[in-house]
Amino acid sequence: MRQSQLFTKTRKEAPSDESALNAKLLIRAGYVHKEMAGVYAFLPLGLRVLNKVKQIVREEMDNIGGQELFMTTLQRKELWEKTTRWDDKIVDVWFKSELKSGGEVGFAWSHEEPITDMMRSFISSFRDLPIFVYQFQNKLRNELRAKSGLMRGREFGMKDMYSYCLNEEDHTKFYNQAIESYKKVYDRLGIGEDTYITFASGGAFTEFSHEFQTVIENGEDTIFINKGKGIAINAEILNEETLKNLNISREELTEVKTSEVGNIFNFGVKKSEELGLSYMGEDGKKVPVWLGSYGIGITRLIGLIVEKFSDSKGIIWPENIAPFELHLLSLDLDTRPDADTLYEKLVREGREVLYDDRDVGAGEKFADSDLIGIPTRVVVSKKAKAAGGFEIKKRKKEKVSITTDV
Amino acid sequence: MRQSQLFTKTRKEAPSDESALNAKLLIRAGYVHKEMAGVYAFLPLGLRVLNKVKQIVREEMDNIGGQELFMTTLQRKELWEKTTRWDDKIVDVWFKSELKSGGEVGFAWSHEEPITDMMRSFISSFRDLPIFVYQFQNKLRNELRAKSGLMRGREFGMKDMYSYCLNEEDHTKFYNQAIESYKKVYDRLGIGEDTYITFASGGAFTEFSHEFQTVIENGEDTIFINKGKGIAINAEILNEETLKNLNISREELTEVKTSEVGNIFNFGVKKSEELGLSYMGEDGKKVPVWLGSYGIGITRLIGLIVEKFSDSKGIIWPENIAPFELHLLSLDLDTRPDADTLYEKLVREGREVLYDDRDVGAGEKFADSDLIGIPTRVVVSKKAKAAGGFEIKKRKKEKVSITTDV
Repeated sequence: MRQSQLFTKTRKEAPSDESALNAKLLIRAGYVHKEMAGVYAFLPLGLRVLNKVKQIVREEMDNIGGQELFMTTLQRKELWEKTTRWDDKIVDVWFKSELKSGGEVGFAWSHEEPITDMMRSFISSFRDLPIFVYQFQNKLRNELRAKSGLMRGREFGMKDMYSYCLNEEDHTKFYNQAIESYKKVYDRLGIGEDTYITFASGGAFTEFSHEFQTVIENGEDTIFINKGKGIAINAEILNEETLKNLNISREELTEVKTSEVGNIFNFGVKKSEELGLSYMGEDGKKVPVWLGSYGIGITRLIGLIVEKFSDSKGIIWPENIAPFELHLLSLDLDTRPDADTLYEKLVREGREVLYDDRDVGAGEKFADSDLIGIPTRVVVSKKAKAAGGFEIKKRKKEKVSITTDV
Repeated sequence: MRQSQLFTKTRKEAPSDESALNAKLLIRAGYVHKEMAGVYAFLPLGLRVLNKVKQIVREEMDNIGGQELFMTTLQRKELWEKTTRWDDKIVDVWFKSELKSGGEVGFAWSHEEPITDMMRSFISSFRDLPIFVYQFQNKLRNELRAKSGLMRGREFGMKDMYSYCLNEEDHTKFYNQAIESYKKVYDRLGIGEDTYITFASGGAFTEFSHEFQTVIENGEDTIFINKGKGIAINAEILNEETLKNLNISREELTEVKTSEVGNIFNFGVKKSEELGLSYMGEDGKKVPVWLGSYGIGITRLIGLIVEKFSDSKGIIWPENIAPFELHLLSLDLDTRPDADTLYEKLVREGREVLYDDRDVGAGEKFADSDLIGIPTRVVVSKKAKAAGGFEIKKRKKEKVSITTDV
């Protein structure tokens, strides 16, 4: 894409009401627009990143048998009443409104209830199970405070998957497959090395849960890790009993700051019982279905990755989710034809290139390139031409080379 | 995809509270799930159709220079107050709620105001224009009645494009490009021949507008057409003056029932003035920006296409947006290995195949195939094998042939 055509511009300063590093960088570089606290629109560059993250997650969910669907934002009060979760004292992030035709309607902060209720149309016999479904959809949550940029939104993109299984054995098998699948997602997103799975209490609604936590300087959570032994423990459950069970001493653990990048819940048969989702077993008896729920906050992940991979100059995107592979900078009009030719060649080859063909100074182009954070920068200039080719530099390295082949 | 793995099932009856033909067929075939009146979830087959329609629209918007973005559902009251459209007496389909942090928030029924306000960050000089942006996003509208299935939803998918131009001349040029682009969309969706553009009054908010209307038996609108002369007139503006202006007599016009499949609005500079979007002209004076808005109801279109292309047995998808190209039916276990081999070969070749490998009777498979409406049906059976190959039949034709090559 020619940068002269891109309608967004970089800016020197983030909005004064923005305190989160991730949002500051994403706004300054033109990836997102802040509509209000915790509510961000995705601009062309940001949408490219968002779609790449979604595609990676989609491929891994498909690989374990997930079928993609797309539920609705408007939700029925009576469904959530059946599970007590309509009550604002129990779920304190609801947005609700009145229907013109009468009655209240809820706006999706989660989808367990509607999906599970829908499954009553499709599950009747043991032959119908297992079923694994997932979706990408925005969630709306009426958060009192939303000061962490994309890390805690009032409106945010999420991948949520749901598993419906015959019994605990099948459920556990898939639950473990989902864990492996999540690890692949984090690997592909470039944060696999620093992401740990921790056991967590299930909270009010689930039997138990696991969290995926990524080490990050300003993380809001604390976990204790031993990398060698592959052990990670949530601060909330670090006690003598846990240490004994894991056969590890406190001294072997290192305290690190983390942020949650995914969580998976075991609902057991509780929700199926509440909503009336059962199947007829081989013996003709009705059996409630085992439910698991598997979340990844897609836009939150983008926020985390930006915070984790950035420096004073801007963002440093991991290659798999960068908006473009190459940032091509044309520094002067003399060599503009060379830059044009190179750009057209790369596009023909199917490479993803942002081509800075704007009539602005070299300093501005370099600064914008560092801020936008595309992994590889290629410079076409008189100086580089005299040196025998193009300048090439990785965003995360200092070394600049001359090359004739990009 | 193997149909035995698809979690949705066809059903003989639609829900008793569903009166719209499009929703009845889509629910019975397993494309959508009805969450409540006017609110439908998209199941795997439905999501495939939705994504194909979106991709066609996306390509045509990109072709005229559109840049895709993704705005937010949560919207600020103060923006809509500036244009008087926060008022429920002026816009009567708002969903609104209270923010926990104080104040009201609106749920997107449209996006002109937030996008136009956002553009103040990116438009300052005449050099920044023109800008064309578009998005696919669900709109939420608090409709009193929602009885037309996907044709009139409380929550529905829309493509909305916005043009920001220097002046009326540039605006008109793009407005006309958008008309041509829309025609291409309808052609590719298989309804081009029966879709007409009509001039319409702009309503309270715009200078004027055009509608795209598609001929359909149970359409809610009436237009008068002369196909030979390429003239179409909305019933509301059919009068002596219009006839005289168009140099046509009432007798030359045929009355047809239609449904709207797109509309484009000229806002002039009104909204830019209200929201303070201007640029500095070459003479250093501030000039308000010309705004156009271009909508296609994506899910509505799917509803219309289903109503238009169906028979007593089910849906008849146009080829470009069918969930799969081929519906492969294996009728008996003797030839199941032949069917498996054919399926695997087709998948290797990159063909999109729904493979009915379920252990159900031939009658059920044929009925489901007609209901689901994939354009080409291929049958593998002992009978077909004895006749020298596979049976092949187009959904919209009666003729069955034997073929050895699919």
